[in-house]
Amino acid sequence: MNMEKIQQQIKEFSKQRDWDKHHNPKNLVMALSVEASELLEIFQWLESNQTLNLSEEKLTHVKEEVADIAIYLIRVCMAYNIDLENAIFEKMKKNELKYPLVDKEGNKINYKKN
Amino acid sequence: MNMEKIQQQIKEFSKQRDWDKHHNPKNLVMALSVEASELLEIFQWLESNQTLNLSEEKLTHVKEEVADIAIYLIRVCMAYNIDLENAIFEKMKKNELKYPLVDKEGNKINYKKN
Amino acid sequence: MNMEKIQQQIKEFSKQRDWDKHHNPKNLVMALSVEASELLEIFQWLESNQTLNLSEEKLTHVKEEVADIAIYLIRVCMAYNIDLENAIFEKMKKNELKYPLVDKEGNKINYKKN
Amino acid sequence: MNMEKIQQQIKEFSKQRDWDKHHNPKNLVMALSVEASELLEIFQWLESNQTLNLSEEKLTHVKEEVADIAIYLIRVCMAYNIDLENAIFEKMKKNELKYPLVDKEGNKINYKKN
Repeated sequence: MNMEKIQQQIKEFSKQRDWDKHHNPKNLVMALSVEASELLEIFQWLESNQTLNLSEEKLTHVKEEVADIAIYLIRVCMAYNIDLENAIFEKMKKNELKYPLVDKEGNKINYKKN
Repeated sequence: MNMEKIQQQIKEFSKQRDWDKHHNPKNLVMALSVEASELLEIFQWLESNQTLNLSEEKLTHVKEEVADIAIYLIRVCMAYNIDLENAIFEKMKKNELKYPLVDKEGNKINYKKN
Repeated sequence: MNMEKIQQQIKEFSKQRDWDKHHNPKNLVMALSVEASELLEIFQWLESNQTLNLSEEKLTHVKEEVADIAIYLIRVCMAYNIDLENAIFEKMKKNELKYPLVDKEGNKINYKKN
Repeated sequence: MNMEKIQQQIKEFSKQRDWDKHHNPKNLVMALSVEASELLEIFQWLESNQTLNLSEEKLTHVKEEVADIAIYLIRVCMAYNIDLENAIFEKMKKNELKYPLVDKEGNKINYKKN
């Protein structure tokens, strides 16, 4: 994913519309949370098995909401100079320590990564 | 951002813990929304100007929540074979049509992209 | 439900702790949304059928989150002098117009309320 | 607030439309969270001071979203036989223990309730 190009476009888009004044981190995380709920709304009355084959229309909707979330997420990262890729890898390392693999006897497995 | 490597790690992590059975799209978007609120929670009592200089501790917290959101977002994309980069660029194109640039007289500006 | 007594207690609690300065409507609706997600979190990995018989511990947790949501909701109403009971009845009247009852042939039923 | 009458109307409304099958607790808390975000959305780009004098249109919108949240909240309570009033008073008692009143020297104040 070309993060630099995306960031550049997001920056330009907001600057051209003079929206930067609204885009303080507090407002951005609110907007991010609102977008996450719009994604949630698509699924709220569906049964789990109905989500496997979404209609073309619903899938397009999902794609748009996913993009909206990503855009605000990247905007938050830009506000705090967070390297998203790095943040993801660090969090996944932390998750592996938090949820260690165990064998059937409950002993931790020394999992060797490729 | 090396999306392929991230997807690979997410996949492996979930498979090794036998979590795939819980990770249907409906549950994933719920989890995504919950993580977005955990990010929101950090900011809920802060004034806008207090968000400019977060403490080291809060910044680490923000970084972790941002990563959690990204991980579930990528997981949703994997469930529906959504190319996140492509979805972002398409959404931004749509946003440019939805919010056209206007000059001081309110006329649309034909904005030429570099 | 003795709304007056609840409002009185909420008011006093916040005033005694000098929290009113943080409790502007924007912050209150953020807090409300965060509490709603904490309720959501209890259910995120449960299957629908698992939610019918919650453990005593989970039920206590649900009860607490429900109360937190109600408290912030009432606080928002207090900020705007909204009569919650009245708002509920008006919304339900609107919902009845929005989702009219239809018979098997798809004709609207003139539903007479008791 | 006449909770019994509200519960009765909610029950009837859902039954007449055969919606009970969708209204399992998991779906209800999702819907509640989505409504909370719709309330949040009204405030996302407003500055704190702009929220003090909402337009008539925005105030009506706030009132409707507040009602939607209350309706789903009451529906969740009905699903688990939670007495909302009781839950609120218990939670406020707990909050008073969690956030004790202190004087200027930091000593706890034995706060006597009327």
